[in-house]
Amino acid sequence: MNLSATPHPVLVQAWRGGIVESAHRGALAVVDADGHVHTAWGDIDRPIFPRSAVKVLQALPLVASGAAERLGLSDEELALACASHGGEPAHVAAAAAMLAKAGVDASVLECGAHWPYHEGSARDLARRGEAPSALHNNCSGKHAGFVCLGCALDGGGDRRAFLRGYVEPDHPVMREVSASLQDTTGWDLTRSARGTDGCSIPTHAIPLRHLALAFARVATEQGLAPCAAGAARRLREAVARAPHMVGGSGRFDTRVMQQFGARVFCKVGAEGVHCAALPTLGLGVAIKMDDGNNSRACEVALAAALQRLLQPSGADAELLDTLADLTLRNWNGRVVGRLAAPPGGRADP
Amino acid sequence: MNLSATPHPVLVQAWRGGIVESAHRGALAVVDADGHVHTAWGDIDRPIFPRSAVKVLQALPLVASGAAERLGLSDEELALACASHGGEPAHVAAAAAMLAKAGVDASVLECGAHWPYHEGSARDLARRGEAPSALHNNCSGKHAGFVCLGCALDGGGDRRAFLRGYVEPDHPVMREVSASLQDTTGWDLTRSARGTDGCSIPTHAIPLRHLALAFARVATEQGLAPCAAGAARRLREAVARAPHMVGGSGRFDTRVMQQFGARVFCKVGAEGVHCAALPTLGLGVAIKMDDGNNSRACEVALAAALQRLLQPSGADAELLDTLADLTLRNWNGRVVGRLAAPPGGRADP
Repeated sequence: MNLSATPHPVLVQAWRGGIVESAHRGALAVVDADGHVHTAWGDIDRPIFPRSAVKVLQALPLVASGAAERLGLSDEELALACASHGGEPAHVAAAAAMLAKAGVDASVLECGAHWPYHEGSARDLARRGEAPSALHNNCSGKHAGFVCLGCALDGGGDRRAFLRGYVEPDHPVMREVSASLQDTTGWDLTRSARGTDGCSIPTHAIPLRHLALAFARVATEQGLAPCAAGAARRLREAVARAPHMVGGSGRFDTRVMQQFGARVFCKVGAEGVHCAALPTLGLGVAIKMDDGNNSRACEVALAAALQRLLQPSGADAELLDTLADLTLRNWNGRVVGRLAAPPGGRADP
Repeated sequence: MNLSATPHPVLVQAWRGGIVESAHRGALAVVDADGHVHTAWGDIDRPIFPRSAVKVLQALPLVASGAAERLGLSDEELALACASHGGEPAHVAAAAAMLAKAGVDASVLECGAHWPYHEGSARDLARRGEAPSALHNNCSGKHAGFVCLGCALDGGGDRRAFLRGYVEPDHPVMREVSASLQDTTGWDLTRSARGTDGCSIPTHAIPLRHLALAFARVATEQGLAPCAAGAARRLREAVARAPHMVGGSGRFDTRVMQQFGARVFCKVGAEGVHCAALPTLGLGVAIKMDDGNNSRACEVALAAALQRLLQPSGADAELLDTLADLTLRNWNGRVVGRLAAPPGGRADP
């Protein structure tokens, strides 16, 4: 399989000095809950690794199993289960609180440790002479959610022993998580590749068409089993009330959901993936930038897609105008360029 | 001008779970000092911003003017003038020493401040409760070099007053620097776009063909005025003796030049640019990855090009094998993928 076989349209251009300095190709699918394709740019049938963009789909069993309610998880904690957070103090505290509710601590986490993505929080940690723990990992909330799901599956035995290896594909926790991915996307996960994600759980290659379908289902609750539909609503509501927990200070997903509330759920993933659920339109969106690399391009591409789909006005429009046509400044704060979608959202090869 | 008009070949692929997860397109030129093209992949005649990849060309007047010798600049300091450094203590100290030799201090620097790219150094700074200064800017050595060049141009007047605005295109210092770029590349800078770089100096759009020519000239000293030829040799020698100063701990350019010494000069630039001078072959190399974004792709593409061109053996081959086929590990240190050039170095659209 080679991405080069079908050059995708350019979805984002970086401008400097009046010329296009860099360009990002990618594919984009917009689909409704019946599977009807609203937009298909590029190859939306090639399986791609959705990475962290599908955390909300992976968190559905936490709620659908009843574990979230039994443990009394808050909006903030449920939002954190869907998050790639910045490791700010509020994120770390919420992850620790989830683990405490499950009767365990951070030593059960199998996501690995890294310095907080949020620069100020990383510097504060360094200033205190501390090192990061698994709680600072951007995936710690998702993993704490897996641990809480484990409480509904462990049969009342030795919880720590049961949880060991929960990141592995054949562990009961991960089997539930993968089943949720398969049910919501309608994609047989055995049909395509499986890789290992940054936090050691499996990532399954799924076509953009099916990812967008899953997000349309999350948006509308149609096409989901009743308990999954209720879980989707509960998670959407939690994230809309606590958008800071999904990303953090200054982060794209947080800024969008702080403005749009329940009207948009969106989530970035590594290697240039972005997915969104649009309840007011009944649509799901899935984007993969060919080059991956970092999130600058998929964020601009999603902002431009939201402009086209939502036709916003007032403060909604102002925010999307800013995010879809990013001003680039240098170390002196001087404007040196911009990052924006081509007119109409795409430029063909 | 639109990059999408001519899809470039894929030069680097990111693999995960047995499939290509992401792909990086780009263009590559290998040229000799007579301008004969050894390799042309993609459009090598479209002007691109070379950014920091041409710091050695911008440092030639510092030596050619006699300023470097009069001020007694060391190998380390000359290498730093060609650097995008990590802001490690040795880099900061050398930049400060250059300014002291010019009779000024860091307050004359117009590059702006940012936290050291080298993570450990950034954390040490935070741990001490300090904030970064312009000396930590990855370009501080280049700027200190501009300041030293100013010593040869200021006519003995008020040096601080003379230096003010040295980053502007019409300042005498920057006119010398731009003239060096034009002379070495053979490209009339007025023919294409001019942008502003991250450190506020101008960046001129120049075709890869001409960038590779300039590096072939630096490699061979052919096609340069005598004083520029001598300056090229002096800078190559300085960098070969002090490769740590050009990048820093663990950085691609430093690792390559620590191994290859005077046989390779290479330098990364922002937005996916990489240039190299290969004295033993008399060739110059210039690469621009379409997506820019960060340096992961251009580094792998250059390592693969060095493999093909140099046909290395022993420890040379081992290093390039590592850099041209990078193992990707996750937060747990688990191998999750690789980053490598397609067989033969390219995959066509």
